[in-house]
Amino acid sequence: MKISILTLFPEMFESVFSSSIINRAITNKHVEIELINFRDFSDSKHGQVDDTPYGGGSGMVIKCQPIIDALNSIKTKDSYVILTAPVGKLYKQETARKLMEKKHIIIICGHYEGIDARVYKYCDEIISIGDYILTGGELAAMVISDSLIRLVEGVIDEDSINEESFEQGLLEHNHYTKPRDYNGDLVPEVLLSGHHENIRKYRLKESLRLTKLYRPDLLENREYTKEELEFLKEIED
Amino acid sequence: MKISILTLFPEMFESVFSSSIINRAITNKHVEIELINFRDFSDSKHGQVDDTPYGGGSGMVIKCQPIIDALNSIKTKDSYVILTAPVGKLYKQETARKLMEKKHIIIICGHYEGIDARVYKYCDEIISIGDYILTGGELAAMVISDSLIRLVEGVIDEDSINEESFEQGLLEHNHYTKPRDYNGDLVPEVLLSGHHENIRKYRLKESLRLTKLYRPDLLENREYTKEELEFLKEIED
Repeated sequence: MKISILTLFPEMFESVFSSSIINRAITNKHVEIELINFRDFSDSKHGQVDDTPYGGGSGMVIKCQPIIDALNSIKTKDSYVILTAPVGKLYKQETARKLMEKKHIIIICGHYEGIDARVYKYCDEIISIGDYILTGGELAAMVISDSLIRLVEGVIDEDSINEESFEQGLLEHNHYTKPRDYNGDLVPEVLLSGHHENIRKYRLKESLRLTKLYRPDLLENREYTKEELEFLKEIED
Repeated sequence: MKISILTLFPEMFESVFSSSIINRAITNKHVEIELINFRDFSDSKHGQVDDTPYGGGSGMVIKCQPIIDALNSIKTKDSYVILTAPVGKLYKQETARKLMEKKHIIIICGHYEGIDARVYKYCDEIISIGDYILTGGELAAMVISDSLIRLVEGVIDEDSINEESFEQGLLEHNHYTKPRDYNGDLVPEVLLSGHHENIRKYRLKESLRLTKLYRPDLLENREYTKEELEFLKEIED
């Protein structure tokens, strides 16, 4: 997989992309990352990329020309173009799974003042990482990249991935490690039993309980197994 | 406002927190940021911070001791403690608004393999930035910090904030800047009219249309104004 990122602030990515897991994925050629400053594509003498908004309003708007020219310089038939912006579909783990099928992902980083809307038609998808405002789309591009890179085969342990929150449509169960007794706060007894089947049941039940408690929205439209339905009943009683 | 971040990877934050807006906010003393490596608080000889999970399973689990000791070393009566984890309440712009009332925010970065659940009771809130999995909680801590810092008075233009998506419960209208004609793609005529009231109406209608199209969930429970209801009817016709 190749990820190309179009941004005005390529230097912002440095310390994040050199962090352990992502850096190893790049070194081991599991993923190729390309950072492009679309200011380099500005057709104005002084590399200007923004201008005042038509119709008035505060702040500046990023012009379409530098972005579209930068895009055209790298786009191939294998490219899938994403724009990060609050006006977009909410990013979810299933979006990440879907994007994993693409060979080349181009992420255009939105900007808090807004970019000229005529860029939209050059994008396959507009994605928002959540209902909050950031100073720029750079953090959103990092979040999307990170979530994708860890799914690339060989980057992290396959078992870890399947056990995680959302992958089974539920929040993950709680984790515990040493010591057994932390200032009187004990690890649940069943986890010390060595009885694999009881541990599996306990964890599934905990996953259901936590999801029902914190994120009941995740359970809407869920197709429960017979076992899950029994646990749900026990939780409700 | 002071933000303290507890992480195993403080170096990951460097290029993000030295980016223009955040760096200026720090330099101008609008915000103070403290990065703490909780590995320094490990009571084991070799600075070990993780161990195998009780009950079995893949990967390692972060121990509670180093985190809780690091926390206790900085916590005051003004501190509000957040843990970033997929098992958490979804972060939204209204969460950011609420957190702005706190003097000292401590963010504990979760870890993809999980941390010992006995840490939870030391936290005021567990926050998830979205329904997707990241390699660590560091990007989540950056997202939360960025969304807060831009709301601190004096960091960015107040007008920009009020015009943005979510602040009025709607997605923001589209933006346009020069040129008027980009390869035959024109700026909407009304924005060139100079008629402020028509422009205001056009933009509000566009906000409603975009929200209805892309994020109908944001309109649930909305208390519409009379004008908004008229525009909605026009959109539906």
